[in-house]
Amino acid sequence: MTREAISHETGAIYEFTPNLESIATVESGAQLTIEARDSLDGAIQDDSDVIDSIPEEVNAATGPIEVEGATPGDVLAVEIEAVRLDEPLGRVITIDGFGLLDEYDDIEAPRTQTTPVTDDGDAIEFDDLEVPVDPVIGTIGVAPESESYTTLVPHDHGGNLDTTDVTAGNTIYFPVFQEGAMLAMGDCKAAMADGEMCGTGAEIATEIDVTVDVIDGGAADIDLERPLVETPDAWKPLASAETLEEACKLANRDAIDLLAAEHEFDDTDAYLLSSLVGGLEISQVVDPLVTVRNAVPKEYLSSPF
Amino acid sequence: MTREAISHETGAIYEFTPNLESIATVESGAQLTIEARDSLDGAIQDDSDVIDSIPEEVNAATGPIEVEGATPGDVLAVEIEAVRLDEPLGRVITIDGFGLLDEYDDIEAPRTQTTPVTDDGDAIEFDDLEVPVDPVIGTIGVAPESESYTTLVPHDHGGNLDTTDVTAGNTIYFPVFQEGAMLAMGDCKAAMADGEMCGTGAEIATEIDVTVDVIDGGAADIDLERPLVETPDAWKPLASAETLEEACKLANRDAIDLLAAEHEFDDTDAYLLSSLVGGLEISQVVDPLVTVRNAVPKEYLSSPF
Repeated sequence: MTREAISHETGAIYEFTPNLESIATVESGAQLTIEARDSLDGAIQDDSDVIDSIPEEVNAATGPIEVEGATPGDVLAVEIEAVRLDEPLGRVITIDGFGLLDEYDDIEAPRTQTTPVTDDGDAIEFDDLEVPVDPVIGTIGVAPESESYTTLVPHDHGGNLDTTDVTAGNTIYFPVFQEGAMLAMGDCKAAMADGEMCGTGAEIATEIDVTVDVIDGGAADIDLERPLVETPDAWKPLASAETLEEACKLANRDAIDLLAAEHEFDDTDAYLLSSLVGGLEISQVVDPLVTVRNAVPKEYLSSPF
Repeated sequence: MTREAISHETGAIYEFTPNLESIATVESGAQLTIEARDSLDGAIQDDSDVIDSIPEEVNAATGPIEVEGATPGDVLAVEIEAVRLDEPLGRVITIDGFGLLDEYDDIEAPRTQTTPVTDDGDAIEFDDLEVPVDPVIGTIGVAPESESYTTLVPHDHGGNLDTTDVTAGNTIYFPVFQEGAMLAMGDCKAAMADGEMCGTGAEIATEIDVTVDVIDGGAADIDLERPLVETPDAWKPLASAETLEEACKLANRDAIDLLAAEHEFDDTDAYLLSSLVGGLEISQVVDPLVTVRNAVPKEYLSSPF
């Protein structure tokens, strides 16, 4: 099967809306290579290039891609096979009015630190240090149910999830809210800390290999309301909310639903078990809705699909 | 050198205060075995034993132990060599008015699930499941600077940190606020998820092997204000606050101080680097002050001591 390439030059969105128009239509099972520009649309090529305030358009997401047969109530599985850097430079920045420590006087904004990719492609340079390349897809999602969200914001449709687990080797599952699902992704990082404290990772253009599959009717025993990530070792419901506390509650509730369905526990017993294994993980604290995941090791949970 | 045993039967505290009276005095470099009873003082031996409301006295911490030569401005290093289960049963519970999902009607409180230890001692049983034993010291700290904190609460002196990294193989460092440091610990779990969502792990009595060392004058280039954990791979400042957002800020600021001192970066460059490597981790979300750590891989940070 030939991989179909879909480029940001064909189309990219800055807002996930319920009524997106697709730039490509693919079958369930399609193997794609998504070309994504960097989150700042190439505006930063040098340390002297700074971003004074959050751009109105940021985090271009290549797409939307209509997946034939995806209808509301289904689940869209996006298996991430590879994320390759597609330019020789990343950039990590502060922007005034953005980031975990924006309020502190000693934190200077705007500032830019470019992070050149080493010749072997395995690391980026930060000053005299080398940081291993470990790419992350920052923004990935589908058309939402009723509200619209700019690509700066994460919510139940996905969007700016900025989650280190959204990377090669893992699969992310989305509820399908609209016909064709309307998948879009971009805003990749060459490396990113859990939390993304300054507001960015090392932002960089990429080529992303994915396989998309429609799971007809979704999961048998749970109603997937938000994104779910599968890693080799764990299932991780992802939840975004105004506060970390609220996001923790949503992610934990989703983990409880999965555990209760698997083991035929009531919610309280599933809650007790969730307090013993895996646990809560911070995705990002800045977007400005924040994102948390609740890891449940696969020893305690088989596939819900 | 013979290990000195110090038992909860000799003395245990339910409050960390600035003016603690020691139950034992040891030299810097002493190897100790601390015997700690379970956080609920043995009140739960069966699934029918439930806790109706948070007890006035909970999380007994064996101690305080005066470490000779420890004076304010020093740092106390507590190397954790082993945490052994000391009874055949753990327990995980809900208590009304406590826990991440306390507000939800479908979460029943009080409820108790006892978790028997398997014959080989490697796992605990939860219903038909087995969960590997991976002990955590829930409460550990020193005499605070000026305020008093019950052992239910974490703060800059340590206390109820409920952090999975506080376990065998790691070292936890505390600022010394009072003469002799006045170390105390207890509230161990046979297993616990990051987050400790229901409010407990599998609470259990333990024997803890530690070596305590006074680091005269503390770190050369930073002023340690809060606990710091060293794992084989990372340094992790720990911060407790009223919200997860506030705890994230404190932990990230501490990580920035360490990175800035190591690399002679200004705070902004350290912030940018902190956004690329390691990251924020949730310790617990229930105590009711919450605890977060900021992991910095050792590739980027040598010992500050």
